[in-house]
Amino acid sequence: MEASDLTDHISRRFNKDLEDLRNHVLAMGGLVEQQLSLAISAIVSGDSELGLKVAEDDYKVNEFEVSIDEECGRILATRAPAAGDLRLIVAIIKTITDLERIGDEAEKIGFLASKLAAMDRPSDSYRELKTLGHHVAHMVRDAMNAFARLDVEEAWEVVREDERVDEEYESIQRQCITFMMEDPRSIKRVMNVTWCARSLERIGDHAKNICEYVIYMVQGRDVRHTGVPEGTKSDS
Amino acid sequence: MEASDLTDHISRRFNKDLEDLRNHVLAMGGLVEQQLSLAISAIVSGDSELGLKVAEDDYKVNEFEVSIDEECGRILATRAPAAGDLRLIVAIIKTITDLERIGDEAEKIGFLASKLAAMDRPSDSYRELKTLGHHVAHMVRDAMNAFARLDVEEAWEVVREDERVDEEYESIQRQCITFMMEDPRSIKRVMNVTWCARSLERIGDHAKNICEYVIYMVQGRDVRHTGVPEGTKSDS
Repeated sequence: MEASDLTDHISRRFNKDLEDLRNHVLAMGGLVEQQLSLAISAIVSGDSELGLKVAEDDYKVNEFEVSIDEECGRILATRAPAAGDLRLIVAIIKTITDLERIGDEAEKIGFLASKLAAMDRPSDSYRELKTLGHHVAHMVRDAMNAFARLDVEEAWEVVREDERVDEEYESIQRQCITFMMEDPRSIKRVMNVTWCARSLERIGDHAKNICEYVIYMVQGRDVRHTGVPEGTKSDS
Repeated sequence: MEASDLTDHISRRFNKDLEDLRNHVLAMGGLVEQQLSLAISAIVSGDSELGLKVAEDDYKVNEFEVSIDEECGRILATRAPAAGDLRLIVAIIKTITDLERIGDEAEKIGFLASKLAAMDRPSDSYRELKTLGHHVAHMVRDAMNAFARLDVEEAWEVVREDERVDEEYESIQRQCITFMMEDPRSIKRVMNVTWCARSLERIGDHAKNICEYVIYMVQGRDVRHTGVPEGTKSDS
């Protein structure tokens, strides 16, 4: 084998490693999206069993995190990647932490769903949680799409979306407080609604974090803590 | 210069880089501890200005995170560290994310302190938040000590401590619900107490995460999601 063949071979192997790694992150993202979507269904439909199933399945998300982490360590140790490849791996190490935390929040929502299922149900079947839930589920999906396509514009869109999620969350909290003051017998139940809204709001934060890593990965620029730039649409 | 001198020189420079990096993480930890401690004081003493000062100063924690992150990237790219050194850097990349999130929670507690300062104050000056706050501040300090000394035994101690913090947190939440049911006029105020307890509980989680990275760093073994082993004291 010629030296240049060997180099080609190594570089093909390396690309294959990175491609596998990216696919594993996308698969983990897919699982997390599914967990979130089932957790929201469990709340809306008052399905206690489904809620507990989501909580129980969180170990699958954790297993993904540990195995992808090992994969990153192995690539760093054996390939000593540079520049863009290195940024990809650092971004993945951070991304899977956020995905795992989204899984944790879905687990909490699953538990809360099983509690809420055993209590009085409001006539609107927790419409406001459903709306917020779909909103953040959309953010998670868009964040994973931005990751898959290295799409900086889509990543900024998710970062901006998080502000709207925060407003929606604040409005639910105000409603909950009003509701508890009007009917103190509802306090125990409504507290579960506030915890659920809180978990959903945090999922939005995690989706935003992932998008910030995508921007860092593509542009080599750390945009955390800098605020959303004006008119990113026309800039990019 | 002889080749061996050059190797020595490079390895001394590398050790210096790693030492600097560790010191920066410890300095960031010190700042975060201080922010947390001031946030707790602001709650207990009803000091609105102090609370807002803590919230305002969160940017300092963020700056630390960005600069240490860059330092890690530079070392990974230029030194291609292996084995234990590589684990150190991966652990640091994760640790500073958790430190930054502890800073975020301290910021939230600062804001809540300024809100609570403007409301009726209970005669016990939020004793239960003070106790929980000191408990988690202790965990953060122990986590940073475990990091500084690579002390696996101390790291396990913090992981175990987190279970006690969770119990304390649950008990505060139950008290809050009882309180709101007995006196619905207190709902707005008590909701701020529950948010504050929630932030403190999350800080405990982050301290625990940091300790899990310490164990990974020292033992090269991922202990997340595995539960606390029995009798780690005698094992280690």
